[in-house]
Amino acid sequence: MPANASVVIDLKFERREVDAALPGSYVGRKVLHASDRSADLSDARYAVLWKPDLDLFKRAPNLEVIFSGGAGVDAILAVPGLPDLPIVRFVDESLTTRMSEWVVLQALSHLRQTPAYLAQQRKHEWRELSQPQASEITVGVMGLGVLGLDSVAKLKVMGFNVIGWSRGLKQIDGVETFDSSGLDAFLARTDILVGLVPLTDETRGIFDAKLFGKLRQGGALGKPVFINAGRGGSQVEADIVASINGGVLGGASLDVFEKEPLAADSPLWAMENVIVTPHAAAASDVRALFRNSELQMQRYEAGEALQHLVDRKSGY
Amino acid sequence: MPANASVVIDLKFERREVDAALPGSYVGRKVLHASDRSADLSDARYAVLWKPDLDLFKRAPNLEVIFSGGAGVDAILAVPGLPDLPIVRFVDESLTTRMSEWVVLQALSHLRQTPAYLAQQRKHEWRELSQPQASEITVGVMGLGVLGLDSVAKLKVMGFNVIGWSRGLKQIDGVETFDSSGLDAFLARTDILVGLVPLTDETRGIFDAKLFGKLRQGGALGKPVFINAGRGGSQVEADIVASINGGVLGGASLDVFEKEPLAADSPLWAMENVIVTPHAAAASDVRALFRNSELQMQRYEAGEALQHLVDRKSGY
Ligand SMILES: NC(=O)c1ccc[n+]([C@@H]2O[C@H](COP(=O)([O-])OP(=O)(O)OC[C@H]3O[C@@H](n4cnc5c(N)ncnc54)[C@H](OP(=O)(O)O)[C@@H]3O)[C@@H](O)[C@H]2O)c1
Ligand SMILES: NC(=O)c1ccc[n+]([C@@H]2O[C@H](COP(=O)([O-])OP(=O)(O)OC[C@H]3O[C@@H](n4cnc5c(N)ncnc54)[C@H](OP(=O)(O)O)[C@@H]3O)[C@@H](O)[C@H]2O)c1
Repeated sequence: MPANASVVIDLKFERREVDAALPGSYVGRKVLHASDRSADLSDARYAVLWKPDLDLFKRAPNLEVIFSGGAGVDAILAVPGLPDLPIVRFVDESLTTRMSEWVVLQALSHLRQTPAYLAQQRKHEWRELSQPQASEITVGVMGLGVLGLDSVAKLKVMGFNVIGWSRGLKQIDGVETFDSSGLDAFLARTDILVGLVPLTDETRGIFDAKLFGKLRQGGALGKPVFINAGRGGSQVEADIVASINGGVLGGASLDVFEKEPLAADSPLWAMENVIVTPHAAAASDVRALFRNSELQMQRYEAGEALQHLVDRKSGY
Repeated sequence: MPANASVVIDLKFERREVDAALPGSYVGRKVLHASDRSADLSDARYAVLWKPDLDLFKRAPNLEVIFSGGAGVDAILAVPGLPDLPIVRFVDESLTTRMSEWVVLQALSHLRQTPAYLAQQRKHEWRELSQPQASEITVGVMGLGVLGLDSVAKLKVMGFNVIGWSRGLKQIDGVETFDSSGLDAFLARTDILVGLVPLTDETRGIFDAKLFGKLRQGGALGKPVFINAGRGGSQVEADIVASINGGVLGGASLDVFEKEPLAADSPLWAMENVIVTPHAAAASDVRALFRNSELQMQRYEAGEALQHLVDRKSGY
């Protein structure tokens, strides 16, 4: 592999953010843009992608490595005609930190009853609500990857009791962990459920009425709360609505949805104890994406192993 | 001092919380209640107080130690006829943890634009707002006592850059600190100001337009934000309103007010980026209060020094 091979970029992000991040990135490399329909992409050895054009892989037949513009690769793995090349996903401290900001914010918002207090505020009503403290609540984190592990650590610092679940059993100091087979036991202990799993065949629709029904009832919050920032495809929104209306769930914070943007007529927007954010929990910082992928290109050209590779069989 | 001396309780908290905490507390001691107007309180050596009756000290002339039901002692120090006895304030892990929950929740709510996102949600509007991450923001904590220090540590874990200010200079790993004389330099660096100072002659009205005008303008949040959970007497609410309307402050989170409950016609209730909570940041847990004061009584009776004593001269 020659040094300084060319890169093609096809990122369906805000154009202005991509443009702003380009100067100073990929120094010494030819940078091609898929959006330039007349460009000859046959030189490109690397592709940095988010929702790529359907004909990208035809136009760039000599790629050697694909870089995902996001931490989740479900969308890239679903692209028709995806060549059998190594896929590096986006792992970056800024992304991780932002996700933990969002997760801790949501957990604290439900603990400290932000929706109820803001509703009182709108009525100019001064009334203290009784409430447990963090240590009386168990937060169960599903997905103990790069993001899940950081959230676990920060939720613990805030005083929550934290337990975790992942495909393979993990060892985390001071945190009880469960593997796939321990899902029911994990759920039975959980007051606030945090979803940070990738979307795969195994996790599609996993957050459904049946699962919500297994969460702990009568914990210190009264009813369990569901927080999801993984992927919308993992949740069944009709079941979230029904579980809240039926008194099984006490509330939710959702950053991801089955179909995005969330339809204007979704009942979720207006539900009392539901917080909706527009897939904004941890936006990819384009500068960090370029910096990270550049580092991996250098490793690759130096004959070192690529990092953060996607395992196609498990789908993440 | 004999062992197991008697205690008088005069706590203007929720009656039901006090009653619930009594069984199992002060075992072996006579417990008297100021609310029992016919009780003879002359036996009492200890008083556990929050907003005591004006005649309490006449009715209980043989007190040796006063225990404050709250962490702040401004109200007790202002009680007419307060005898010159040691005052132990309420310091407890549960109180500290709850305060840090509230402080971190408020800092994250402003960082992640909770009020703006909830306003969009009410309109069923899907729109990502651009935003900095915690490390681009400097949180300046005023007051580095029991509560301030815990908030500092947790804000740091969440990724914020944190600086601190106190009367005497403090040494905190990884945190730049300032003493009284460094207030202007401290404010000039601060994007989110957190007030955790006691109410004393020196801090009365300290959070005014002049002070807000010294906060950093044009930081990553655009405008500075004011968060106060110390005491309302330290803030000038008319100045908060004017500073927000005048574009000097970008928002606020207030748990304490000059007059509580906050008047229904205060403009603060309805301001766009202002979050109001009803002096609920860190409610005293009555069980913990009884446990703590009992411990201090045992120390006192064993001839050991009392802890968490109030310095009347400095007023906290
Ligand atoms: N909302 C947003 O803004 C946003 C931003 C970034 C990422 N995300 C989402 O967050 C997801 C997680 O990111 P990450 O970087 O933490 O991923 P990661 O490092 O690959 O971790 C994934 C975790 O999920 C677990 N997992 C996967 N499939 C499972 C299964 N079938 N059963 C049990 N556990 C399973 C994995 O278990 P093992 O540890 O045993 O492998 C691992 O702990 C991404 O895939 C993406 O969809 C969302
Ligand atoms: N909203 C609520 O629910 C709630 C609940 C509990 C407490 N509070 C309030 O929180 C306050 C702080 O509690 P705490 O336990 O942290 O108190 P603390 O341990 O006594 O600490 C007070 C801090 O404020 C600093 N300070 C006091 N006067 C100052 C001045 N004139 N200039 C600069 N710094 C000054 C002190 O400086 P030094 O370190 O140099 O002494 C100290 O760092 C309480 O007094 C109470 O009013 C509110």
